[in-house]
Amino acid sequence: MSFKVITEHNDARTGLLKTSHGEIQTPIFMPVGTRATVKAITNDELLEMGAQIILGNTYHLHLRPGEDNIKTLGGLNKFMNWKKPILTDSGGFQVFSLSKLNKISEEGVEFRSHLDGSKHFFSPESSMQIQMDLGSDIIMAFDECLGHPATKDQIEKSMAMTHRWLKRSKAAMTRKESKLFGIIQGGLNLETRLKSLDQICSVDLPGYALGGFSVGEPIEMMHELVKVVGPKMPKDKPRYLMGVGTPKDLILSIDAGIDMFDCVMPTRVARNGTLYTWQGKINIKRAEYKLDSGPLDPECDCNVCTNYSRAYLRHLFASGEMLSARLNTYHNLYFYLKLMERAREAINNGTWDEYRDDCLKRFG
Amino acid sequence: MSFKVITEHNDARTGLLKTSHGEIQTPIFMPVGTRATVKAITNDELLEMGAQIILGNTYHLHLRPGEDNIKTLGGLNKFMNWKKPILTDSGGFQVFSLSKLNKISEEGVEFRSHLDGSKHFFSPESSMQIQMDLGSDIIMAFDECLGHPATKDQIEKSMAMTHRWLKRSKAAMTRKESKLFGIIQGGLNLETRLKSLDQICSVDLPGYALGGFSVGEPIEMMHELVKVVGPKMPKDKPRYLMGVGTPKDLILSIDAGIDMFDCVMPTRVARNGTLYTWQGKINIKRAEYKLDSGPLDPECDCNVCTNYSRAYLRHLFASGEMLSARLNTYHNLYFYLKLMERAREAINNGTWDEYRDDCLKRFG
Repeated sequence: MSFKVITEHNDARTGLLKTSHGEIQTPIFMPVGTRATVKAITNDELLEMGAQIILGNTYHLHLRPGEDNIKTLGGLNKFMNWKKPILTDSGGFQVFSLSKLNKISEEGVEFRSHLDGSKHFFSPESSMQIQMDLGSDIIMAFDECLGHPATKDQIEKSMAMTHRWLKRSKAAMTRKESKLFGIIQGGLNLETRLKSLDQICSVDLPGYALGGFSVGEPIEMMHELVKVVGPKMPKDKPRYLMGVGTPKDLILSIDAGIDMFDCVMPTRVARNGTLYTWQGKINIKRAEYKLDSGPLDPECDCNVCTNYSRAYLRHLFASGEMLSARLNTYHNLYFYLKLMERAREAINNGTWDEYRDDCLKRFG
Repeated sequence: MSFKVITEHNDARTGLLKTSHGEIQTPIFMPVGTRATVKAITNDELLEMGAQIILGNTYHLHLRPGEDNIKTLGGLNKFMNWKKPILTDSGGFQVFSLSKLNKISEEGVEFRSHLDGSKHFFSPESSMQIQMDLGSDIIMAFDECLGHPATKDQIEKSMAMTHRWLKRSKAAMTRKESKLFGIIQGGLNLETRLKSLDQICSVDLPGYALGGFSVGEPIEMMHELVKVVGPKMPKDKPRYLMGVGTPKDLILSIDAGIDMFDCVMPTRVARNGTLYTWQGKINIKRAEYKLDSGPLDPECDCNVCTNYSRAYLRHLFASGEMLSARLNTYHNLYFYLKLMERAREAINNGTWDEYRDDCLKRFG
């Protein structure tokens, strides 16, 4: 794997990330394929909408169908017939948010499956092994995810363990096609964030991420921290802001030099009828769309906007039809990927400031 | 609308049915799009798999979004962006099977919506009006659907009313692009069936259907009746067997001269993991498929069989992923449409007996 910055505009930049499953142009949004599928969407559709890399969740895939089965079947790419790169998280975040009865020790985390209550144990070493068995191109270090609020003492202790776990994660890496990203924690406090940045980036790695956001904090806290911390992350490595966010969050973060994003939001809210358009967010269930024969988003050229009316999309949603979730998800992902494509163009063409300000006006 | 028999082989035949939305080659299976969508499937996919006509349900569309709204939006074809022919049922069957508190009189049926309990009334005249407002190419007469078992007296009374309702249905037709099919009832008794055939076919119409099957009777009763009644239906008109059935049912019915079929089964069972293959029916949830890297059906060239393994399809089903319903539905519809395409080829090529016997061996 290699990463090269292509164009810079102040802190914003475009780049090219090469993996064993192909190249990725950054900034990029990665659709989330938790259980070896981006919900309701096929791989052909992901390619059609310009997806360059997707995300898989180690926690879910470990529990079902199990990395041993996926490995036997040739790895996650082959299992789900996705030919482009895959990034997997470490499982840490889900262990803390989904599973029952976590018991954290220096060695790792014991937890019970949210599916059947069975007992499991994740350590830096086992998380790396699972991700390597899945055959991921980008592997995330095993870290502790603190909630919000946390005291400074809790934060300091947690980041120190995350640092030790990172060194163990790195030592456990034995598959040359898989590249390890470290995760900067440090809570919602600038001092501890910068200290974690120093700790994590002192370990030489192919990429670095910001973790521990979207844990219930006021969103302005994240914007302020990313604005300061983003530009201080190593310039010659890809920078990944985990689990974020709205179109506004993405634009502000690109402005702070972030290259990679993932978030379940565009797919999750799609299933509730919330759709992103270039005129802002709308909810398709509203009565005003009942007889609206116009496209969902007149500025969008996706298959949904060119083929179906708002009235039809409203009907599908009101009827609880599966096609509703499918078309809504398609549009929202297309929108997110287009937002990124236009960001890359704007940075490359020297029009980033105008694009950023236009987006903030539309989505702010 | 016109219908022409192309090739005959004993009672089996191929034909060409012309409608205002294009031609249909028969025998044909019509995917069911109850609420203005074939569940989980897009129109592009329907075209890709060779669908020539789909079915809409008058009862459901009347209740939501309402034929007035669909008419305002340009009709059902335009509403759902489906450019090929549409057949709608009369709403009668659903009134009897889904709604609450039916009150049947000579005038029609009063019923309460299964959605919100609101009161509605269907008569032959209102059913025709709704179907014309939807803009259907083929409109089904409003008939009474008796359950099984029924006494001979009940059957006779019901068929007589169905006959009177057919004449009222015909008199109510005012839209020239919409063509009315009459429905032969007569229960599961050969004598009354043949009497209903005479009654219904005495009314000159563009097509005729057999209704009142799949109401809980032993399947052999239907096979025997269709074998006798099918060939006695007018030869120069399309013959439609409503709501049927399994691959075996279709093959036996084509052999008895039936041209058109619809059934929710291939789509409904797909969502429960039951899949039709050229080697017979399988359930994808079975443990034996856990590590099966082979295609769902090695004899099928659909997108699902060429792109995904049984192990992956099993995982999607076990995980309750929407993509499971989507891929399973796609495959089953593709299978049904291919079964029909091969039937047409066999009849046209003079190899119908071999094809029929091979199918009965596979699916019997």
